[in-house]
Amino acid sequence: MSAPKKVVLAYSGGLDTSIILKWLQTEYGCEVVTFTADLGQGEELEPAREKAVMLGIKPENIYIEDIREEFVRDFVFPMFRANALYEGLYLLGTSIARPLISKRLVEIAAETGADAVSHGATGKGNDQVRFELAAYALNPDIKVIAPWREWDLSSRTKLLDFAEKNQIPIAKDKRGEAPFSVDANLLHTSSEGKVLEDPAQEAPDYVYQRTVHPEDAPDTPEMVEITFEKGDAVAINGEAMSPATILTKLNELGGKHGVGRLDLVENRFVGMKSRGIYETPGGTVLLEAHRGIEQITLDSGAGHLKDSIMPRYAELIYNGFWYSPEREMLQALIDKSQEHVTGTVRVKLYKGSVNTVARWSDHSLYSEAHVTFEEDAGAYDQKDAQGFIQLNALRLKLLAARNRRLK
Amino acid sequence: MSAPKKVVLAYSGGLDTSIILKWLQTEYGCEVVTFTADLGQGEELEPAREKAVMLGIKPENIYIEDIREEFVRDFVFPMFRANALYEGLYLLGTSIARPLISKRLVEIAAETGADAVSHGATGKGNDQVRFELAAYALNPDIKVIAPWREWDLSSRTKLLDFAEKNQIPIAKDKRGEAPFSVDANLLHTSSEGKVLEDPAQEAPDYVYQRTVHPEDAPDTPEMVEITFEKGDAVAINGEAMSPATILTKLNELGGKHGVGRLDLVENRFVGMKSRGIYETPGGTVLLEAHRGIEQITLDSGAGHLKDSIMPRYAELIYNGFWYSPEREMLQALIDKSQEHVTGTVRVKLYKGSVNTVARWSDHSLYSEAHVTFEEDAGAYDQKDAQGFIQLNALRLKLLAARNRRLK
Amino acid sequence: MSAPKKVVLAYSGGLDTSIILKWLQTEYGCEVVTFTADLGQGEELEPAREKAVMLGIKPENIYIEDIREEFVRDFVFPMFRANALYEGLYLLGTSIARPLISKRLVEIAAETGADAVSHGATGKGNDQVRFELAAYALNPDIKVIAPWREWDLSSRTKLLDFAEKNQIPIAKDKRGEAPFSVDANLLHTSSEGKVLEDPAQEAPDYVYQRTVHPEDAPDTPEMVEITFEKGDAVAINGEAMSPATILTKLNELGGKHGVGRLDLVENRFVGMKSRGIYETPGGTVLLEAHRGIEQITLDSGAGHLKDSIMPRYAELIYNGFWYSPEREMLQALIDKSQEHVTGTVRVKLYKGSVNTVARWSDHSLYSEAHVTFEEDAGAYDQKDAQGFIQLNALRLKLLAARNRRLK
Amino acid sequence: MSAPKKVVLAYSGGLDTSIILKWLQTEYGCEVVTFTADLGQGEELEPAREKAVMLGIKPENIYIEDIREEFVRDFVFPMFRANALYEGLYLLGTSIARPLISKRLVEIAAETGADAVSHGATGKGNDQVRFELAAYALNPDIKVIAPWREWDLSSRTKLLDFAEKNQIPIAKDKRGEAPFSVDANLLHTSSEGKVLEDPAQEAPDYVYQRTVHPEDAPDTPEMVEITFEKGDAVAINGEAMSPATILTKLNELGGKHGVGRLDLVENRFVGMKSRGIYETPGGTVLLEAHRGIEQITLDSGAGHLKDSIMPRYAELIYNGFWYSPEREMLQALIDKSQEHVTGTVRVKLYKGSVNTVARWSDHSLYSEAHVTFEEDAGAYDQKDAQGFIQLNALRLKLLAARNRRLK
Repeated sequence: MSAPKKVVLAYSGGLDTSIILKWLQTEYGCEVVTFTADLGQGEELEPAREKAVMLGIKPENIYIEDIREEFVRDFVFPMFRANALYEGLYLLGTSIARPLISKRLVEIAAETGADAVSHGATGKGNDQVRFELAAYALNPDIKVIAPWREWDLSSRTKLLDFAEKNQIPIAKDKRGEAPFSVDANLLHTSSEGKVLEDPAQEAPDYVYQRTVHPEDAPDTPEMVEITFEKGDAVAINGEAMSPATILTKLNELGGKHGVGRLDLVENRFVGMKSRGIYETPGGTVLLEAHRGIEQITLDSGAGHLKDSIMPRYAELIYNGFWYSPEREMLQALIDKSQEHVTGTVRVKLYKGSVNTVARWSDHSLYSEAHVTFEEDAGAYDQKDAQGFIQLNALRLKLLAARNRRLK
Repeated sequence: MSAPKKVVLAYSGGLDTSIILKWLQTEYGCEVVTFTADLGQGEELEPAREKAVMLGIKPENIYIEDIREEFVRDFVFPMFRANALYEGLYLLGTSIARPLISKRLVEIAAETGADAVSHGATGKGNDQVRFELAAYALNPDIKVIAPWREWDLSSRTKLLDFAEKNQIPIAKDKRGEAPFSVDANLLHTSSEGKVLEDPAQEAPDYVYQRTVHPEDAPDTPEMVEITFEKGDAVAINGEAMSPATILTKLNELGGKHGVGRLDLVENRFVGMKSRGIYETPGGTVLLEAHRGIEQITLDSGAGHLKDSIMPRYAELIYNGFWYSPEREMLQALIDKSQEHVTGTVRVKLYKGSVNTVARWSDHSLYSEAHVTFEEDAGAYDQKDAQGFIQLNALRLKLLAARNRRLK
Repeated sequence: MSAPKKVVLAYSGGLDTSIILKWLQTEYGCEVVTFTADLGQGEELEPAREKAVMLGIKPENIYIEDIREEFVRDFVFPMFRANALYEGLYLLGTSIARPLISKRLVEIAAETGADAVSHGATGKGNDQVRFELAAYALNPDIKVIAPWREWDLSSRTKLLDFAEKNQIPIAKDKRGEAPFSVDANLLHTSSEGKVLEDPAQEAPDYVYQRTVHPEDAPDTPEMVEITFEKGDAVAINGEAMSPATILTKLNELGGKHGVGRLDLVENRFVGMKSRGIYETPGGTVLLEAHRGIEQITLDSGAGHLKDSIMPRYAELIYNGFWYSPEREMLQALIDKSQEHVTGTVRVKLYKGSVNTVARWSDHSLYSEAHVTFEEDAGAYDQKDAQGFIQLNALRLKLLAARNRRLK
Repeated sequence: MSAPKKVVLAYSGGLDTSIILKWLQTEYGCEVVTFTADLGQGEELEPAREKAVMLGIKPENIYIEDIREEFVRDFVFPMFRANALYEGLYLLGTSIARPLISKRLVEIAAETGADAVSHGATGKGNDQVRFELAAYALNPDIKVIAPWREWDLSSRTKLLDFAEKNQIPIAKDKRGEAPFSVDANLLHTSSEGKVLEDPAQEAPDYVYQRTVHPEDAPDTPEMVEITFEKGDAVAINGEAMSPATILTKLNELGGKHGVGRLDLVENRFVGMKSRGIYETPGGTVLLEAHRGIEQITLDSGAGHLKDSIMPRYAELIYNGFWYSPEREMLQALIDKSQEHVTGTVRVKLYKGSVNTVARWSDHSLYSEAHVTFEEDAGAYDQKDAQGFIQLNALRLKLLAARNRRLK
């Protein structure tokens, strides 16, 4: 890789990415463009602008954007159409944000004539893979600089030294080391590392940031109605909202009732296991409701096919292959299934759990006439079951006859 | 089908199967053997014996058996090794009991020289399929009599008339019609039909029988430790127990905390949707704990493969193909994966939810040395990630280069 | 099912469907509309018109149509995009034609005000299922009459008696019974039954109708170039052709070289095994060539995903679920993959075999720069492989370390 | 990685691995143990011993072994039980040999106290991955030295210079460069590189080494009968043989008739496409025959499940994951299916093709009584098909009714 001339950095304004910014300037001597995105992480962005200016970034090289709507509409919602769960439990809150960030990095590189992008992910995690696979898939010639894999600032002390030497201001509470590491966006907050590293130890209460403790949640359940159109949530309690607004509102509701906590040991793409604490309040509610509406609007053929490919789809997103032919092929399959996933679900939130209690839809395939215990109105002839069973049994009988014959 | 001479009936002692018993005697003029099993449904079995005697069954033709241990050891536990969920949510409590009942029916037929078996499942449901596929798979020449598909007693009135005409005693509370239909065994209680038929209406509180309302559950969470060996639960809170005892104990714990309720609209094998209310307290706890122990003892290759075949496995059980080559093949795959699924999980039960909070094992694959945020002790070279990403990206780059070339 | 008033019959003009026609008139007393389609079976259609007139069908009730282009364009080609093979070997020549015939039956029923359709498939085969599932999927209220499952004309003698009694002319060569049964269309000819029923006996030479014996094929190989656009063949040896023309031409080429014979024992959807002799000359060439072009234009992610869902896709078509949500979902996935499957393949035909020998495309992903044994021009850094292997090995090392630890 | 002290080298006796041997001695100053295996590649092994001695290897450090029986029995045959084909066409001849070689390297390392193993695979191919994943899976602490990724001898000139400088004898025909690269074992011969690098150019005739040109094959077909027991071939034309003898004999038969050639562009695990010419005469015959016997001895449930997991299984072997939990899990599934795959198949070999023409077995599931066109003997009630179709159609009708309702 020849030396980069100009690099677009995914910049949070925090200490670590400020150090990276300075390191890129000093180590590579290259011009830096900063990209700071509001993905719903709950931090103000303007301080990042000030800090970038202070670190010598030209105003026209500072990009600050609210991409929450794009995030939910084009990434979160398509993923939820699949009911995606990684390893049975994880709602992929970090994984799904990375390709969007990379997409903007690559686009800004094209706009500003930069030949490289850079990110603050370490060499041990999945995020480096996600950032970089997305970047290469969008621009095969882009250079990617991953300082954590390159530099020798691998201890806290060295980092702080570098910061001081380079006049990077260090907030008082950053002098000591955080007891765990956090990633947040509109879909979730994840915490990992340090005090969480032993999976035999319960996570301390102070780790949770976005959901109340179920024990502290209201003593009265709350009912929420979510309306879907073609697989995407479009209204809460009858009120139409934009995608990001819906997710924000569901986060509020779920968080209030302690919904969406997960303590998980998962398999990283890079080969080791890690333990994470995830809080996905709105996403957990959304998944339950989406399943609820699919129950009456998807037929079994569609539903079972979706279920069978879901683990692969989730794995692709987890591993960073959002921009891959196979993810797009699976998405085409999933989206095709959602044409009639339209209707409303009522869920009950209560002290950490969310459960579907009712669902209705003009697109419903549920037929009381067929299922009823009441005397038949002719919709279904019970005698048909005889032939159905006989032909399904035929091969089993032939197998049994063989086994008997060979004894 | 030539007329059956002697038939083994799955007999609960209740009104419906008593009517079937009498109908078999009168309609087919055949000798009846009754089989009443304790699968943990929570009813006493001796009344069934008395009733059978009263209906003219010879003592040697009355089989009453406690098969709870066999049920849990050979059916429930193998299924839980797979983390089986039908349509993402259903723990298959009814489905998994049917093949065992059929197995005993066929075995008793062989012992007693009967040429037929009979059951009380209707022509609209899945249970007829499960009973009959299992029976044919075990004895290809067995005859199966499904009275509900044959007779003309399809209304409540006709049934009661038949009962009266044949001096079958009718308990007072059976004169009116039950507001819904129930199936129960050690794994779950399911309720469906009548008042539950409209999926847009919430299930009334009185439907639930086995779990307290989450709102009525204790205000204090309870921690439970479950120990696994090769994928099966073997101890609770350090105390070793038999399979059925473990499930009984977990039912008690889960039920007390309102865990394991499910309101589901599902797709029946026979083609229509139905709505069921399931209570699976112990099973829900067991699934969570099993996943918890797999998190640290299964590697990603094993885990992801299991996840990918699980929907198919669950569908086979739901559809009644327990005794099929493909279920046995999948079981071989699953069992192979469980050789190291040994260790202990701590779960927290609280007002309707169950969550893993800690897990440990001598068989753990979790390596703090690899994942730690602390400075490396050499277990992992972050620079390897560079090559890993580059080769994973190669095909994506080639794709992107093509797209650019063709523009 | 109430009695049908007017029925559209899939009518070949042959003896069997003529008997059905008359039987419908006499048994149900209903008006009959005949539908005779040219699907490339190689028979003239006008005799069917004459015969229909003779059997009393009104001219406006006689539908005769050449649907070969629709057959290849909308059914055969989409299926070949998937490289569909049932049970590893069968190109689904019969299966893929049935939904189109049903579609036209149902459409003609709508045009003519008929309330039923009818077909000549027996009660033992797959075709009844395919015809009827397609019909019900397109019109849930249509009635389907399957005479072979209803009538008592189940022996050759009874059939001929019925024909004579009803003045249906019987060609001399139809008096005796055919030594096997044949189905043909533009994609294939299948033969089964009678002399072919013992799978331990080689099929006699006279069974083959559409391909020369490989031993009689030319002694000189023939090279053929097939050009694809988005997964569909569009030209042969540089000459652009319509879908049906391409398949016709490939049949001619393949047949001449003895390509496309298959002797198969397969599993029918209705539960038993059957043995068939299939001749699919053009289809066999097309499959080979399509795979050839995919080799350079599909990346591994897309290709492997296609391969993994192909068996399910083929099974759906075989079982008659062309018009099902899951087939359409899989088709969406497959079609998405074909956007760049454009280019040309050269295959060699010789005495029963067809093999790709060269392929080229502007859409090729093959990169000589990456794969070359020559000294590198920098396209690929061999050192990257080190990291790639290390991270892929990490979980295997952790497993091995566990095994050692537990010994 | 600390410096290795003693290394076991996969040594062919050829120029390249002799250079590696010397390079290991000089570069790492370590003791070298050579392992030369007869996998059926058709070369004498004793010259390798002489050469090793000449290069200074102590006699007790020279391992020469005939492992053909183990290769076929424990690697090739288990793989063929799965009908494994990579990317639809490739019989995995190279892939399946690598894990066995690695296994012996690691075992010999344990016996001789070596701490490292080494191989001659380049940094661009799959073989490095296969060798190394297998080695790490068997011994997590083993060091692997891959000289082609490390040294600077990357051009032919540099290699020859090194050889001369180190007194490694160079056969005259090795001075010039081979026009392509070859790998061979009892299962196949593969050729790639150089003259084969352009997939648009037909492979020259001289590339083929193990099969006659179909045009030169005998003008008379040859029939061969292969007998299987539990999925493995055990006899040819009635004569029982050991696994390696069977494969040798099938190679002879297939090669004589020009069977088993393949010109393929495939996707390497390391991310690029490559073109290979494969000759797998015996394997091609074996696959066809194995499918033939499965046709009558496997039921559809088993067969379709096998088909659906096969692509994944083949990919695992191709990618080098033979020693992985997921390959072993799939093997357990496959082996379970083979319990009744016992019987005999007759195949016809003729000018490049092999086709099943007959098969028979005591374990056959084929039932002439069920499938016959003759009048029924009661084995099958055609009326059952009515109910079978109705229930399979039910969901399709409900879908169609919805679509109509919403119009």
